Amino acid sequence: MKEMANRDDMQIGDIGEFGFIRSIKDGCQFSSEKLIKGIGDDCAVVGPYENKVFLITTDLLVEDVHFISTKISPQHLGRKAVAVNLSDIAAMGGRPLHLFISLAVPESTKLGTLHAIYNGMKGICKDYRVNILGGDTSASLDRLVINVTVLGEAHEDEVLYRSGARPGDALYVNGTLGDSAAGLRLIKGELSAPEDISSPLMEAHDLPEPSLEAGQMIARSRLASAMIDLSDGLISDLRHICEASGTGAILSQTALPISENLKILAERNDFSPHGLALSGGEDYRLLITVPEKNSGAFQKMFEKGVPCPVYHIGMITDNPGIKMVGPDGVERQLEIAGFDHFRR
Amino acid sequence: MKEMANRDDMQIGDIGEFGFIRSIKDGCQFSSEKLIKGIGDDCAVVGPYENKVFLITTDLLVEDVHFISTKISPQHLGRKAVAVNLSDIAAMGGRPLHLFISLAVPESTKLGTLHAIYNGMKGICKDYRVNILGGDTSASLDRLVINVTVLGEAHEDEVLYRSGARPGDALYVNGTLGDSAAGLRLIKGELSAPEDISSPLMEAHDLPEPSLEAGQMIARSRLASAMIDLSDGLISDLRHICEASGTGAILSQTALPISENLKILAERNDFSPHGLALSGGEDYRLLITVPEKNSGAFQKMFEKGVPCPVYHIGMITDNPGIKMVGPDGVERQLEIAGFDHFRR
Repeated sequence: MKEMANRDDMQIGDIGEFGFIRSIKDGCQFSSEKLIKGIGDDCAVVGPYENKVFLITTDLLVEDVHFISTKISPQHLGRKAVAVNLSDIAAMGGRPLHLFISLAVPESTKLGTLHAIYNGMKGICKDYRVNILGGDTSASLDRLVINVTVLGEAHEDEVLYRSGARPGDALYVNGTLGDSAAGLRLIKGELSAPEDISSPLMEAHDLPEPSLEAGQMIARSRLASAMIDLSDGLISDLRHICEASGTGAILSQTALPISENLKILAERNDFSPHGLALSGGEDYRLLITVPEKNSGAFQKMFEKGVPCPVYHIGMITDNPGIKMVGPDGVERQLEIAGFDHFRR
Repeated sequence: MKEMANRDDMQIGDIGEFGFIRSIKDGCQFSSEKLIKGIGDDCAVVGPYENKVFLITTDLLVEDVHFISTKISPQHLGRKAVAVNLSDIAAMGGRPLHLFISLAVPESTKLGTLHAIYNGMKGICKDYRVNILGGDTSASLDRLVINVTVLGEAHEDEVLYRSGARPGDALYVNGTLGDSAAGLRLIKGELSAPEDISSPLMEAHDLPEPSLEAGQMIARSRLASAMIDLSDGLISDLRHICEASGTGAILSQTALPISENLKILAERNDFSPHGLALSGGEDYRLLITVPEKNSGAFQKMFEKGVPCPVYHIGMITDNPGIKMVGPDGVERQLEIAGFDHFRR
């Protein structure tokens, strides 16, 4: 009883976001009817219905925690709030269908601001042919709150989970890493650079594009074994794949894709870009594991397929933990860093 | 241009919640594939898939706007946050399947409080065999925010919409009205009564029960023409039915079901209980319209069916607006009052 009482007195910061999710995960399922995947992946998966499964994901954004109203235009904010949810659908190889928006709004908010948020949302929904089918609008005392829920679909036997990685699988990412985190530091004024360098980095932060086309192509090809989107940072999200698959992983530092802009910014401001690439967060790229025998075909598919690159950054191993080979050829254990809303 | 600029400078309080929803409703649908109903009912409806349709609804609760942490136990708060969403599924005649929870939590929140909220949620999910399949947990600077999304299902040809009411249809409600609003005033200390009177009224506010069994029975019977759940207050929600159906309605004041407890409370505190019954809000009863020819069978079904009463409170008319016949037999136009988060 004493231990229980102590535990109840603890704060969420003592166990972190992922510790909290583990602590509430049990006793959440009361029916297994048409249930494929509950808590623990980018989306929940239910079905099948006519050979399709449904994917559902939801994300809550709170002003001054997830965004600062003076640092992002309302139109970009609306677009991003939707984009990060579509990225979760992309990570399972799915197609987004319908969107549901909850807004809590301080009474003093200008209508023009709210319409600009909605215009940003409608813009990205139009781009990907996603319907906005409902939601909830209510008052907030001070801060703007946005919750987005997306319903998507995928073919039953094409869905990619976090749990499918096996030792020996090659590890890929479909774009550069760390740009968004660098952009955030530029936006906050913690770093500086000429406009032609800073502008694309800030855009990587404000306007991430969900990899829907790539995700669907990968799912259709059936060449990959696991997939996740990079929201918390490479190490943290790779750890989710490793934990779900019961594996470890090894990264190659020199293989991490760093954009020219980030390289220049890092040099000008005298820091290593690899820290941001490893744990900066909000990249919204796909991290993909591919069985060795498929990796030739996988790379070839990207050469002739969608106009986006793919980078081979490491390998899945059977030793737990995540290691990185440095430019000196020395293997080092990586500290598990990444974004956790609460972890101190 | 001038008008546009003025409009953008207006605040959401100037046009109200429903005015805002009207202003953003256009341009939200980019694909009509398997889309039955978007914005404008208790749930969105998509499908059919194997003769079933999916119902989706979402609700956002913000501390100090929708609830006051010191006035409701965390377990009751969790249960209620789910109940109000299940009530939207009940209002379409559906069966809830899966739940998605987003929480934004001040870092100082005790784990015991969060687990109590989850225990309340899990309790009602167990009662109705609804799975909790995912969500999002993140930080909030000060106030607790809870968003719940529910995915439910219904038979394609049994779903009840707001738009099906026709002049001459009888108007029913499946329980007493105003108890929850009276309970809120007791909780806030604005009214007082002995515990045996106050306790069930406060419970009506804190622990509303979604009318899932009644909603499904009504849908299966195919005797009703329209349905909605009472969240904003009888007049406001009846107005939603009238607007969607292109009708008016007339209520009978003496037919409004008022509980004995509310009658005693009203007498002790010298107010009329009918104001709360008409526009108190948060009743979470079902308001049902039934074609005249079905009303005998409809009432009979409730006599032998689920153990809950049903009250005939008025009629749908073809004159726009909502009227009420008083105890004196005089018809009066009712002011459209009801809960709007913003309307001044």
